[in-house]
Amino acid sequence: MTAFAFDIEATDGAARAGVFRTPRGDVRTPAFMPVGTAGTVKALYMDQVRAAGSDIILGNTYHLMLRPGAERVKRLGGLHAFARWDGPILTDSGGFQVWSLAGLRKLSEDGVDFRSHIDGSSHFLSPERAVDIQADLLGADITMQLDECTAFPSTRDAAAASMDLSARWAKRCRDAFGARDAQAIFGIVQGSTFPDLRRASAERLVDIGFDGYAVGGLAVGEGFDAMLDTLDATTPHLPTQRPRYLMGVGKPADIVEAVARGIDMFDCVLPTRSGRHGQAWTDSGPINLKNARFAEDKEPLDASSDCPASRDYAKAYLHHLVRSGEHLGAMLLSWHNVAYFQALMARTRAAIRDGRFADVRAGVRRATSPAD
Amino acid sequence: MTAFAFDIEATDGAARAGVFRTPRGDVRTPAFMPVGTAGTVKALYMDQVRAAGSDIILGNTYHLMLRPGAERVKRLGGLHAFARWDGPILTDSGGFQVWSLAGLRKLSEDGVDFRSHIDGSSHFLSPERAVDIQADLLGADITMQLDECTAFPSTRDAAAASMDLSARWAKRCRDAFGARDAQAIFGIVQGSTFPDLRRASAERLVDIGFDGYAVGGLAVGEGFDAMLDTLDATTPHLPTQRPRYLMGVGKPADIVEAVARGIDMFDCVLPTRSGRHGQAWTDSGPINLKNARFAEDKEPLDASSDCPASRDYAKAYLHHLVRSGEHLGAMLLSWHNVAYFQALMARTRAAIRDGRFADVRAGVRRATSPAD
Repeated sequence: MTAFAFDIEATDGAARAGVFRTPRGDVRTPAFMPVGTAGTVKALYMDQVRAAGSDIILGNTYHLMLRPGAERVKRLGGLHAFARWDGPILTDSGGFQVWSLAGLRKLSEDGVDFRSHIDGSSHFLSPERAVDIQADLLGADITMQLDECTAFPSTRDAAAASMDLSARWAKRCRDAFGARDAQAIFGIVQGSTFPDLRRASAERLVDIGFDGYAVGGLAVGEGFDAMLDTLDATTPHLPTQRPRYLMGVGKPADIVEAVARGIDMFDCVLPTRSGRHGQAWTDSGPINLKNARFAEDKEPLDASSDCPASRDYAKAYLHHLVRSGEHLGAMLLSWHNVAYFQALMARTRAAIRDGRFADVRAGVRRATSPAD
Repeated sequence: MTAFAFDIEATDGAARAGVFRTPRGDVRTPAFMPVGTAGTVKALYMDQVRAAGSDIILGNTYHLMLRPGAERVKRLGGLHAFARWDGPILTDSGGFQVWSLAGLRKLSEDGVDFRSHIDGSSHFLSPERAVDIQADLLGADITMQLDECTAFPSTRDAAAASMDLSARWAKRCRDAFGARDAQAIFGIVQGSTFPDLRRASAERLVDIGFDGYAVGGLAVGEGFDAMLDTLDATTPHLPTQRPRYLMGVGKPADIVEAVARGIDMFDCVLPTRSGRHGQAWTDSGPINLKNARFAEDKEPLDASSDCPASRDYAKAYLHHLVRSGEHLGAMLLSWHNVAYFQALMARTRAAIRDGRFADVRAGVRRATSPAD
């Protein structure tokens, strides 16, 4: 497993800074993975994604298996060639999106039947099929096990049964994945907000043995404090020497608090989705460029940034683009936001190395807590 | 008027190749001006517009005066700074867009009252105001006279009256513009499809004296042949040594036929609008990337192009982006189309210099005539 060595180079409390080595390049951790849902990080060119400081992106199995289809991606040379991203790609298993299709899915021990939200066609996702799609057809560098995202809130019994199913699927995914030199597979801890279930889930996954461990089933409505409490109950039971990935998170305040609890990887649609909705992330929290107060603001979002979108365009111009519904507004704000998140990660990594992560953490909490 | 010298460096029949010199840079002619309606060439970064071979872009007075407002653009440093384009900008007068607002406008000798399509607010455009907006507030390098775009079809009497009004407005615009070293103003020939009216219009404009002469009121429904016949009746009455601009045109076949009749400048929303609608222009005519036949087509639009959008992305990927409604589809196809049109202009210029413009003309006619 040397291809996926994880070198923790510095720690500051429970926070870790390091490098996750993949055959397609190093991932500096803590890492933020922009989401390339359907083979494109929305409204961005891949060279912008890279130059903004992204080492790895995420692809969505659910979206890609429906359109253009996983077999088609394979015939077109795999997801890297298709999307023109030569760095590492982590794919989710599709479980979370299918779970969101209330009424359009049917779960069994074997897997999940569901209907496409695009054309109503029928599809089946099993642990084995999820691995086949991700590792063999899309060619993901990091495959995620198929899991069931436990509904929130859940009774303890329901959460336990759901976690059990995810753990059984974890084993089937691990078996289907087998031994590979150039690809990795991560397990996903479930258990809702029940500390003992989280611990049991973590232990079962560690027992199976994965290249990395994700924490799933969070940011689904449980709230900031419950999310952090659940992380507190989970990360101590994950191996120190393997990367830990908090799925679908989040805002800067979520990220730094999770880093403080030993999380190494993140993904979220927030930067690009916010950008398409006229929002720019700043050290003072998100601002809405549509607001009239920016109509004659000649200052850029961040004059000190290396990112042209942050540095070179007056807020008045961005305001105009957003108000006018121009593509360029979404393009520039998405670009700025991805760069903003990556700059936060770079600042976080540097602070951990310098033993002053508390400063970053306090700064982010202060800046964004009013908006939370 | 040395700032706006027009050096015709080669001719081939009536076609001319040269350089129109502006204080913000040379415009190689025949030139195609991408349309930056509202201060952005839709879905493109300005460096892409430039690298695609654009020497000059067009801005729309009507759109900019309504949003963000011409006075606001002035306060923000002028249109060049606002839109981040440091090359020359030609602005239309707003006359054509206002003319399109049937029912929302009221024409008088003095000018035109109209209501904004955005918020219903009242506005007034006179020849003097059109010049003020373009030259003083937006800071256009080339200002267009305010004209009335004659409806098609029109009776001869109606066309004559309309042309008369445009000619009187031409004089008022010229007077309001006065003498400027670093800015130019163009007159606009009207007269519908009546050769004698076109000639009279041209002669009156030449009498007033402009830095360049546009042919307006075409591509409004008269059809390909009538457009060319009207050009045949017009360009001989325009000064050889001044640039001639055919407004709002057009398809490649329109452009080469107009070049063959001595036209030097063009503008059209076609490349960017087609791009947003999933179409790519090629030597065989426009193709719709949404078509299923491109679903597994690994070839790029043009492997020999210098434009990354044309060269680096498989048609299968573009197909996927268009089908998925992804921003990147509109971004790449708009970029490709602008590059395609600029490559056509470059090929045209080179052919005129080499005395083989007939080859380009025949090639374009052949390729696109089935689609016309």
